[in-house]
Amino acid sequence: MSRGSGGTSSVTMRDVAKAAGVSIATVSHVINDKPGARIGDDARRRVHDAVAELGYRPNALAKTLSQGGSRFIGLVADQIATTPFAGQIIHGAQDEAWRHGYVLLVANTDGNADAENEAIAMMLEHQVRGILYSSWYHREISVPEQLELTDTVLVDCFARGSGLCAVVPDEEQGGRAATEKLIAAGHQRIAFINTTTPSPAQTGRLAGYRAALDAAGIEHDPSFVLDASPEQEGGYGAAGRIVESGVTAVFCHNDRVAMGLYDGLREHGLRVPDDVAVVGFDNQEVIAAHLRPPLTSVALPHYDLGVVGVRILLGLDTADQAIPTLVACPVIQRQSV
Amino acid sequence: MSRGSGGTSSVTMRDVAKAAGVSIATVSHVINDKPGARIGDDARRRVHDAVAELGYRPNALAKTLSQGGSRFIGLVADQIATTPFAGQIIHGAQDEAWRHGYVLLVANTDGNADAENEAIAMMLEHQVRGILYSSWYHREISVPEQLELTDTVLVDCFARGSGLCAVVPDEEQGGRAATEKLIAAGHQRIAFINTTTPSPAQTGRLAGYRAALDAAGIEHDPSFVLDASPEQEGGYGAAGRIVESGVTAVFCHNDRVAMGLYDGLREHGLRVPDDVAVVGFDNQEVIAAHLRPPLTSVALPHYDLGVVGVRILLGLDTADQAIPTLVACPVIQRQSV
Repeated sequence: MSRGSGGTSSVTMRDVAKAAGVSIATVSHVINDKPGARIGDDARRRVHDAVAELGYRPNALAKTLSQGGSRFIGLVADQIATTPFAGQIIHGAQDEAWRHGYVLLVANTDGNADAENEAIAMMLEHQVRGILYSSWYHREISVPEQLELTDTVLVDCFARGSGLCAVVPDEEQGGRAATEKLIAAGHQRIAFINTTTPSPAQTGRLAGYRAALDAAGIEHDPSFVLDASPEQEGGYGAAGRIVESGVTAVFCHNDRVAMGLYDGLREHGLRVPDDVAVVGFDNQEVIAAHLRPPLTSVALPHYDLGVVGVRILLGLDTADQAIPTLVACPVIQRQSV
Repeated sequence: MSRGSGGTSSVTMRDVAKAAGVSIATVSHVINDKPGARIGDDARRRVHDAVAELGYRPNALAKTLSQGGSRFIGLVADQIATTPFAGQIIHGAQDEAWRHGYVLLVANTDGNADAENEAIAMMLEHQVRGILYSSWYHREISVPEQLELTDTVLVDCFARGSGLCAVVPDEEQGGRAATEKLIAAGHQRIAFINTTTPSPAQTGRLAGYRAALDAAGIEHDPSFVLDASPEQEGGYGAAGRIVESGVTAVFCHNDRVAMGLYDGLREHGLRVPDDVAVVGFDNQEVIAAHLRPPLTSVALPHYDLGVVGVRILLGLDTADQAIPTLVACPVIQRQSV
């Protein structure tokens, strides 16, 4: 297989980081001479030594565009391109990639390991600048071995102990923001319909709900936290328990649950928001903006996850491999509170 | 810019078609020696002459994979990667591309002409086998000039007189299938809530509705055809007129309209399907499968559009440049009829 005329090295930023005993972020900052990065002279020297020793060519591709290097960043996605809203990850990654002269090469693998291996191999053959490896929902993953061969950033997923930087939504902050919105509207008796599916969203949003109650000095009532399947049917089925609990507000794990809850509350003769205020999560536009009344929701920052993933990959943003970089989930105000 | 080691020619299948005075499909069939294609000896000879004269290298890339040619097919999309459900076009195109040893290079341009030009230029630089140019909804487009430089197939869009093959959903067949489903369930007084937006979907689905009534010998009542904005609010707002019209069934332009209609009918004390049967269009899973009751809908064949687009591009399927290739829209049966 021809390697093109760019003559790029197969040494990655990760190799340099290992050799220098520093993080990839540190290597990136030294190499890109990022202003404001606080890096000691010793670390800086070790990075320069490792670069020289290993023959690493920092940003070789970006710096040799006119000589004909690869201008690709790979994005390997399990189902992103085909799910209703995580496609904004592609959108954000692409916009940011363009901004820096790269084109995004997208492979959607449907979770098929063979397709994934082939996609990654193809990207490596074409000397991508690096790979964003992403999931259509926030979860822990195991990293395919091949990704050791290039710079990789995990987007909307993470792998503890992998040494790879990850960018994920701040579920706890989002759960807290949703609950605070209800508290600010005067509610004290607030239910949380959580999902039955174990996930960072399940634990994070619950932690945020509790943190908001704590901060407002509202006592927890464990009976106010329900579990339901994370779709319309779950919310509909929870309506009876919500009515019995006597709460005046409900934070729903996602917009689909809120949509089902709307139907269930209506059958109980209750109006949103007059009788019960509701906040959703995900801000799934096609649902949230068009319920009756339109649903206040917390947005998953998919676009920004893509942007930040590219920025970390290109060494434009700092990131710590030990802890995922969190991106805030903003509240989108509509008429259900 | 290095052109790689493949040494591919810049002559396209389209150039050969022009020189030989035949369609691209004919060129493709002759070149790929497709069994069963009925092509006269004269046309076959003219194609071979044009290939020789222009120095066209048929399927050069596919045939020289091991020598290091490009294995890309480009997909230029306006908003596909970021809309709720047209992403299945990417999915289908990618699966079919993989099947033939190609990787799909996706660029989402958001309708920005500069981004589009740059994306196409980048793809041409990287010697894609050809480009799928696609829209997130079925419409007529004007073709960017650069696409003259490579083989192009339009997906979910078309351009009359461009000479480019196009693959689009069969809106009329879909509208007819929806209406036939209601007729088969015993309905005679059937309304159609059409969209206010001029589009092939608007005219095609209406033609299909009328064709189904004609075929069943049911007289048209012009007052049964309403216009509404193609979202939940449109369907909700049409509920009063539906109730007054005295119909027993409604075919909705899309699932979002059906979702709004459900709410409106409920407020009028009517039940679906007992009092009014409803069929949607689009089969937007997150809505249709989870309404109460789940909505019978006509699916847009996005996945198949992507598959067929790639097959035409690679010369594996026949297509006529003068008339878009139609892909059928199947009815997805649920509980609203």
